[in-house]
Amino acid sequence: MSDLKNKILSMISEDLEEIEHALKENLSPYLDLVSEVASHILFSGGKRLRPMLMILSARICGYKGEKDKTYSTIFEYLHAATLLHDDLIDGATLRRGKPVAHSLWGNPIAVLTGDFLLARSLSISAEIGLPKIIKIISKIAEDMSQGEIHQLLRRENLDLPEDEYMEIIRRKTAVLMQGACWTGALIANALEKEEKALSDYGFNLGLAFQMADDLLDYTSDTSILGKEVGTDLKEGKLTLPVIYSLKEASSEDRIIMEKIITDKNFSFNDFEKLIELLKRYGGLEYTKKLASKHIEKAKNSILFFEPSETKELLLNIADYALIRKA
Amino acid sequence: MSDLKNKILSMISEDLEEIEHALKENLSPYLDLVSEVASHILFSGGKRLRPMLMILSARICGYKGEKDKTYSTIFEYLHAATLLHDDLIDGATLRRGKPVAHSLWGNPIAVLTGDFLLARSLSISAEIGLPKIIKIISKIAEDMSQGEIHQLLRRENLDLPEDEYMEIIRRKTAVLMQGACWTGALIANALEKEEKALSDYGFNLGLAFQMADDLLDYTSDTSILGKEVGTDLKEGKLTLPVIYSLKEASSEDRIIMEKIITDKNFSFNDFEKLIELLKRYGGLEYTKKLASKHIEKAKNSILFFEPSETKELLLNIADYALIRKA
Repeated sequence: MSDLKNKILSMISEDLEEIEHALKENLSPYLDLVSEVASHILFSGGKRLRPMLMILSARICGYKGEKDKTYSTIFEYLHAATLLHDDLIDGATLRRGKPVAHSLWGNPIAVLTGDFLLARSLSISAEIGLPKIIKIISKIAEDMSQGEIHQLLRRENLDLPEDEYMEIIRRKTAVLMQGACWTGALIANALEKEEKALSDYGFNLGLAFQMADDLLDYTSDTSILGKEVGTDLKEGKLTLPVIYSLKEASSEDRIIMEKIITDKNFSFNDFEKLIELLKRYGGLEYTKKLASKHIEKAKNSILFFEPSETKELLLNIADYALIRKA
Repeated sequence: MSDLKNKILSMISEDLEEIEHALKENLSPYLDLVSEVASHILFSGGKRLRPMLMILSARICGYKGEKDKTYSTIFEYLHAATLLHDDLIDGATLRRGKPVAHSLWGNPIAVLTGDFLLARSLSISAEIGLPKIIKIISKIAEDMSQGEIHQLLRRENLDLPEDEYMEIIRRKTAVLMQGACWTGALIANALEKEEKALSDYGFNLGLAFQMADDLLDYTSDTSILGKEVGTDLKEGKLTLPVIYSLKEASSEDRIIMEKIITDKNFSFNDFEKLIELLKRYGGLEYTKKLASKHIEKAKNSILFFEPSETKELLLNIADYALIRKA
C-alpha cells in the first residue's frame, strides 16, 4: 500500500466507519433477499470514494449538520445500482475478486435490486428537501444510463474518436463524482463560488479517475485489480490508451493491433504484444498525461479554500486517483 | 368496444392528444437509440391510464396551471420503465401484440433504456419543485422493484396465501395509480381531505385493476389481449383466481390443478380443464367480487366532490376497469 493511501485512510477512518454504518441503516428493504443482494455489492470492499467526496465537500464549505453520512449513501447506492446493471450488461464474472451478483442470483434479481438501489438513492435525495439536488441526482442517473448505452453502441468500433470517448466517460463516471461534490456544497449552503469549485473538482477528478481505471486494465495485475486485466478489450470497449495508439500507429502495426483487439480469444502473448505497441505509440503515456491534466484542474479549482485538513484530504485524494494500483 | 369505453374516450380525446404530445416532448434523450427503444414501449397503444388519472385528479381539485400534461408523463415513463424490465424478467415475447423490446434490441439495451426512463420520470418530478411529490414517486419506484422481486420469489409457490398476493399487487400496481392521483391533488394544492380521497381512489382502483388483469389472463382472447392467455401460469405466477380455487378445491381436484399449474407445457385442453375448475371452485367469481369491492371503495372515496364532468369521468373509469376486455 502506498504512503499516500495510508495517509488518506488514517485521516478518514472515522468517516469511513460512519459511512459503513449509514449504508447499512438506510437500505431499508422489506425483503431479506434485497438486503442480501444489495449487501453483496455494497459491502465487498468498495472505496467509498463517492460518499467521502460528498462529506468532504460539505465539510470544506462549513457544513455543521448531522445528516451528511445519511445523504452520502445516495452516491454509493447509485453507484452500486449501476454496477449491478453494468456487470450484467458486460457479462462480467468478477467484481473486486468476488463473483458478480447476476451469476449468484440470476439476471432478474440483479436487475431489480439495481432498480431498488436507484430508487432508494432518489428517496434519500428527496429527504434533503432541496429540489435542486434531486434535479442534479436524477440527471446523473439519466446521464449514466445513456453513457452506458453510448459505450455499448460503440463496442468493437475501431474508429472511436477521442472526443466520443470523453463524452462517454463524462456521463459514465464524471457526473457522479461531480454530483457528489456539488451536493456536498449545496447541503452546506455554500457560496456560489464554492459550489462551482467543488463541482469542477468532482468533474475533473471523475474524468481522471476513469482514465486511470482504463489504464489499469492494461497495467495492473489480476490479483491486485480483483478482476482480469484486458477485460475492457474482451468486452469490446476501446479506451483512450488504445484509441490514441491506433491513431498514431503505422498502418502495419495498426493491422497487428486491430487483429488482437477484434480477437475475443487473444492469448497472453497477444496481450503482451498489444501493450508493447500501446507503449511504443504513446497511448499509455498520453492517457496518463491527460489524466494528470484533469487532476491538476481538479486541484486548482479548490486552491482558494483556506488551508485545512479537509482541503489537504481533497488534494491528496486527487493525487491518489492517479497513482492507485486498483 | 363497449359503450362505456366509447363514452370515456370521447370525453378525454383532447387530453389524450396532449398526453401523446407531452410524452414525445419530454423524453429528451441525446441518443437516437434511446428514443427509438423508449418509443417502442411508449407508443404502442398504451391506455395512458396513469397520466389521465393524474390530470383528472388535478382538475377535480381545481388545478389551473399548464404543466399537468408535462407532469403526467412521470407516471407513463415510470410505468414504461417497469414494463421494459418486467418483460425481460418474465421472458415475455409479446406486449400489446408487438415483440417486446429485449427481443428486438437485446437485454442490455432494454435494461438501460428502462433505467433511463426511471431517471427521466424522477427528473420531471424534481421539476415540480415539491419534495413531497419526489418522496412519493421515489417510494413508488422502491415499492415496484420490491413487489416484482417478491412475486419472483414466490413463483411456482402453490401455497401463496391471499394476503401475500395482495401485498404483491399493492406494490406492483396499486401504489403507482395511487401516486398518480395523489400527485394530481398535490399540484392542485388540494385540501387534505381531497388529497386523501384521491389517494384512496387511486389505490383501490389500482388493486381492482390488477385483479381484473389477472382475471383476463384466464378469460380473454389472445387476439384481444395482445398477448397469450395463460401467460401468468406459464411464468409461474399464481394469481387470485388460482389461489382461491386451490384453497377451496377437493384434494382430488387440487391434485389435478397442481399438475396443470406446474406443467410448463400444459395443453389447450389442460388450460380449459383448469378454467373449468376455477369456475367450479369460485376463483373467478371471488376475484371479480373482490375487485368490485375495491372499485366501490374507490368510487365512494370521491363521492363528496361536487358534480362535474371530471368526477363523472373518474367514476366511469373505475367502472370500466372492471369490465374491460384487454
